[in-house]
Amino acid sequence: MTFQDILKIFEENDNFLILTHKSPDGDTLGSGFALCAFLRDMGKKANVVNSDNFPERYDLIYESYYPQEFDVKYVIAVDIADTNLLGSNLSKYAEEGAIDLCIDHHISNKYFAKQSYVEADASAAALIMYKIFKASGRKISRQIARCLYTGIATDTGCFKYENTTPQAHIACAELMSYGIDFAYINRKMFDVKSKGRLMVEQSVTANMEYYCGGKCSMIVLTKELMEKSGVDAAEFEGLASIPLSVEGVKIGITVKQRHENVFKISVRSDDEIDASAFCREFGGGGHIRAAGCEITGSLEEVKAKLLKQAEKVLG
Amino acid sequence: MTFQDILKIFEENDNFLILTHKSPDGDTLGSGFALCAFLRDMGKKANVVNSDNFPERYDLIYESYYPQEFDVKYVIAVDIADTNLLGSNLSKYAEEGAIDLCIDHHISNKYFAKQSYVEADASAAALIMYKIFKASGRKISRQIARCLYTGIATDTGCFKYENTTPQAHIACAELMSYGIDFAYINRKMFDVKSKGRLMVEQSVTANMEYYCGGKCSMIVLTKELMEKSGVDAAEFEGLASIPLSVEGVKIGITVKQRHENVFKISVRSDDEIDASAFCREFGGGGHIRAAGCEITGSLEEVKAKLLKQAEKVLG
Repeated sequence: MTFQDILKIFEENDNFLILTHKSPDGDTLGSGFALCAFLRDMGKKANVVNSDNFPERYDLIYESYYPQEFDVKYVIAVDIADTNLLGSNLSKYAEEGAIDLCIDHHISNKYFAKQSYVEADASAAALIMYKIFKASGRKISRQIARCLYTGIATDTGCFKYENTTPQAHIACAELMSYGIDFAYINRKMFDVKSKGRLMVEQSVTANMEYYCGGKCSMIVLTKELMEKSGVDAAEFEGLASIPLSVEGVKIGITVKQRHENVFKISVRSDDEIDASAFCREFGGGGHIRAAGCEITGSLEEVKAKLLKQAEKVLG
Repeated sequence: MTFQDILKIFEENDNFLILTHKSPDGDTLGSGFALCAFLRDMGKKANVVNSDNFPERYDLIYESYYPQEFDVKYVIAVDIADTNLLGSNLSKYAEEGAIDLCIDHHISNKYFAKQSYVEADASAAALIMYKIFKASGRKISRQIARCLYTGIATDTGCFKYENTTPQAHIACAELMSYGIDFAYINRKMFDVKSKGRLMVEQSVTANMEYYCGGKCSMIVLTKELMEKSGVDAAEFEGLASIPLSVEGVKIGITVKQRHENVFKISVRSDDEIDASAFCREFGGGGHIRAAGCEITGSLEEVKAKLLKQAEKVLG
């Protein structure tokens, strides 16, 4: 598919429903709401939906949005690699084979839609959306620019991660020229934390354990700690980066209690260590520097297994 | 001065000494060492100096550097707004009127050099350096690209802060094309912390105080805590952003003990509050969202003064 094919679809259809992935992040919402506003600016009807509520944290993306009344005629999934990411409220669209188009940037995309545009080396779905809009020659609104900037910034860790491309920088340079409040957006997306999240961070940092001469560090999130904090589950995702943030650490392990004897493990590694291979030992997997697995047993047993593997890898 | 004037100076002179500011950061070192490598690539002799040691934290900037032997004939200050930033070991160059050229991006620049190129709206001194090198038409090395990227990234908080310009993004997009390890650089500059720093962060977060219905928060860094941590003074700078990172906080105050009854105050504010005006009440000043002052008295007296002002400002 070319951008012109996609623009032709926009032109020739109406009453669009835009699906975003469950546990929504800045990219699925940023690209979804940007697309919705773009279609409405074309004179089309369009809505955005999610299996979960739109988190308040992302209100700058959808603050001027209101749902429209219409019978859905065309369904577009954005930033969704697989149907299991639709969540319980939207899975019916996959089951009915009703998803007409998918626009995504995950290499793992399962091509579940009737047509798919997947650009695996794009930093964010919002970057693909930016290029589609640009190819149209249409002017975009400041609110669309805000949504796209937010999507690109959040998926690249504010241009910090490996997946940041020169194209992402150049797109954001242009999006900034719409007079968007990017410093406010970045403060809200990257700096502001709830008191509960801060309390949990403080607690796990205070109790961080070091092994293998300081090359391996580990934090443990017990159910008790998470419940006491009153923090939404989504807010715990970023915590996995804490163990690796310590000078000299090469493997940072986060042990999160799911049930009494079930633990979700997140492993982050620096250049020298393959986190994915580490997790494959326990039936998990992921990326080279960020991977995960699940281990059952008592906390002590789980920790012992992880440390044995860490010692082997750090050899 | 134009870039061509500056390039002509490079061409017509030799034996350059490059001065960087005391308590060096990524921008003064990034632009200083980039300039040094650029001049050496032109066949010139050049060295970089600092009143303090080059911090290990920035070793990626100077790892391939070695000092050369020569009699200094031309002195260039980079990223230095005023002579008091030279530090005790370099102040003699100002006293002797020996500084030939200053390249800087601070609006507060005092024009202490014989010639000055100041671009106050440049995100970083490294961005000015990038433009000078580009104007020369010469190819730059990957190591120069790394230095410039590091300078721009560190001075903009990885493209997060208000001072980030479209030009900064576009420059970094081009610098990335030299195949630099930007994700490694960013991890080292923004994510990795010493155990001591982490301990201090954890301690001040655990003891953070909230006032004015959660709109004002305060952390206190006592001399005892700082000494116990074994952390270099430079590492404490970033801590001032912690109080403002809490959801709902509009004024974040950091109280740092200098001496028994002398406290250095850092104030960070969100859009609605003028931190500079806040600090002027105590004889200080700064930027609209980041300012500072010094208050004498017991810790309790200092806190009471600050809270009275916070209550006034927050209405």
